[in-house]
Amino acid sequence: MTDLHQKITGFDLWHLSLPVVSRRDHGIGTVEGACEIVVLRLTAEGGATGWGEAAPWSVFTGSPEAALAALDRYIRPHVVGHRVSDTAAIMARAQTCVAHCTEAKAALETALLDLAGRIANLPVWALLGGKARNTIPLSVSLANPDWDADRALIGRITDDGVGIVKLKAGFADHAFDIMRLEALARDFPDLDLRVDFNQGLDPFDAIRRVRDVAAFKPTFIEQPVRAHHHALMADIRAAIDVPLLADESVFGPEDMVRALREGIADGVSVKIMKSGGLQRARSVAQMAGAAGLSAYGGDMFEAGLAHLAGAHMIAATPEITLGCEFYQAKYYLAEDILESPFPCAGGHVQVPDGPGLGIRPDPARLKHYARNA
Amino acid sequence: MTDLHQKITGFDLWHLSLPVVSRRDHGIGTVEGACEIVVLRLTAEGGATGWGEAAPWSVFTGSPEAALAALDRYIRPHVVGHRVSDTAAIMARAQTCVAHCTEAKAALETALLDLAGRIANLPVWALLGGKARNTIPLSVSLANPDWDADRALIGRITDDGVGIVKLKAGFADHAFDIMRLEALARDFPDLDLRVDFNQGLDPFDAIRRVRDVAAFKPTFIEQPVRAHHHALMADIRAAIDVPLLADESVFGPEDMVRALREGIADGVSVKIMKSGGLQRARSVAQMAGAAGLSAYGGDMFEAGLAHLAGAHMIAATPEITLGCEFYQAKYYLAEDILESPFPCAGGHVQVPDGPGLGIRPDPARLKHYARNA
Repeated sequence: MTDLHQKITGFDLWHLSLPVVSRRDHGIGTVEGACEIVVLRLTAEGGATGWGEAAPWSVFTGSPEAALAALDRYIRPHVVGHRVSDTAAIMARAQTCVAHCTEAKAALETALLDLAGRIANLPVWALLGGKARNTIPLSVSLANPDWDADRALIGRITDDGVGIVKLKAGFADHAFDIMRLEALARDFPDLDLRVDFNQGLDPFDAIRRVRDVAAFKPTFIEQPVRAHHHALMADIRAAIDVPLLADESVFGPEDMVRALREGIADGVSVKIMKSGGLQRARSVAQMAGAAGLSAYGGDMFEAGLAHLAGAHMIAATPEITLGCEFYQAKYYLAEDILESPFPCAGGHVQVPDGPGLGIRPDPARLKHYARNA
Repeated sequence: MTDLHQKITGFDLWHLSLPVVSRRDHGIGTVEGACEIVVLRLTAEGGATGWGEAAPWSVFTGSPEAALAALDRYIRPHVVGHRVSDTAAIMARAQTCVAHCTEAKAALETALLDLAGRIANLPVWALLGGKARNTIPLSVSLANPDWDADRALIGRITDDGVGIVKLKAGFADHAFDIMRLEALARDFPDLDLRVDFNQGLDPFDAIRRVRDVAAFKPTFIEQPVRAHHHALMADIRAAIDVPLLADESVFGPEDMVRALREGIADGVSVKIMKSGGLQRARSVAQMAGAAGLSAYGGDMFEAGLAHLAGAHMIAATPEITLGCEFYQAKYYLAEDILESPFPCAGGHVQVPDGPGLGIRPDPARLKHYARNA
């Protein structure tokens, strides 16, 4: 008899600093040197363990210190001593016990579902209603201020079968964006191209610049202006034929209510680190689907553990039709933390079928990269 | 010659735990035992110092750990080595270098203005365009689950000349709220009564309950439902004659744009800990005034240092006409941190006229209450 009613007795945290292979620039900030994540391990009284990752980005969702404190001090009392079965009740308390810190809440739900899956001998996607797909098209982002380095990256990923790239724009000048778009159209015409501004455009002439980019007919253009400029998002959407995606403007379902009412986008980037967990991420995608919008599997600067959570969530969420960007574990981290590689083949993420998330972190690497060891 | 162009060389932080005298319940959570704040001291190369306070509330704005990390790691590089004169440029960088952590940003702007005021031998209100008032009517909040204890508090504050109380509602059952409103109407008919739900009402029957409360004709009713329920706020506003105040629904000017467009309130609670600083708090109040809304000087669980920042901000902001709630230093903390008492007399906050904030923290008390000493 599978016992999901056993209590959670262990709650352990690692704050990791993971070296990255290059600099990446974005409209809201630069990542260089290392990414920091927080890893949570839950242990049930029977000895089973479940793992989750918080991947904060200080300029976007909050700091790793905030995520660590959220889990360690504010969320812990709502978890330890409670039953593995009571995921939804635990998550409801976690959502309100500390403001923001959505990555911490995503780590918690990931670990709770991994733990339940390990105990029940079922993959996480089976605990979310079952699969809609076995593979997810993989997009790799181009964000290096050194364009030659990104051209080399394109060669590497296309050799691996990757057919989608997302160009990060709006962090340097407009001419640099147009030069790269021209080069992509000329030299890599078969790539499925998307463009992401990460809020980087000055509102004053955003529409003009977005129109210039739209002339290259990317599959979508993502978040050209700051999150709170909803009216301008709606104006930009009306000014272009290319679909407009909301990212920073939509964290969770509450934001999606507003996005739908104000017509700010044709699609939404869904991220467990923004929504505060897998179920809330699915809600965002389901709301998009109900309203005729598309959804995309976005991510933060994640290691493979968070990618796994996202992959299970997308596997079980048919509304997320635009692929995913879980490329960091393979193409951006100097070394990932999983005991076997995050599964990608032929340009697609392969959804794991093993119990829980399917792959665990390697304890030796957690120890090696820990800041709080 | 007053030299505001000298550089900032010192940046020191204290994480304090300040014992409080009673439990206080609110729609979003309970405060008991102690409040935690973060105190920042800036030092200029000439030796002058400026002080600021971050007063986080984990369920509302974020955790003290997040505020401490925001200042210590993310904001510090944008301050140290920069000039005292460049407050606005420093604040612009601080606003975007780390997400959320509005209390940390309020502490920074407070310390920058205190520092400039000390160097220039001018009070902070003079650096914000000059005074509109010398005193601010003081409101004390009634949030004790023990009503008899709150009745005793009313006796104490009315002896001190305080004429305004804000009843915290929505944390227990409706009957408890109505009982207290009846008692206030019967036993303290001369008090200026306001009611604050702190988001505590279930949306399902919020309008009915707010109408019951409105029958007691309070001066205003504050934030009955969760911050993101804008449409319901607008519906409640339409359903009652009593003015409706937005608190959690409006953090900064960006939220105020939306609040005005959607007509969610007749007034707004302005707090430097929500807006991320004094200038942004003033912007919220000025937007309210421009649209015909009233503004109130709200606060978090603050010590006297944050009260001082709020008092200078309100002194220089004529739009904030509904008084303030800077009562914690005198009536809620077991001991405040200022070297002389936060100035209240005759039920009014007395706006200081000395240089900077006018009063400094007592170093011995910082040392005594420090968690990170």
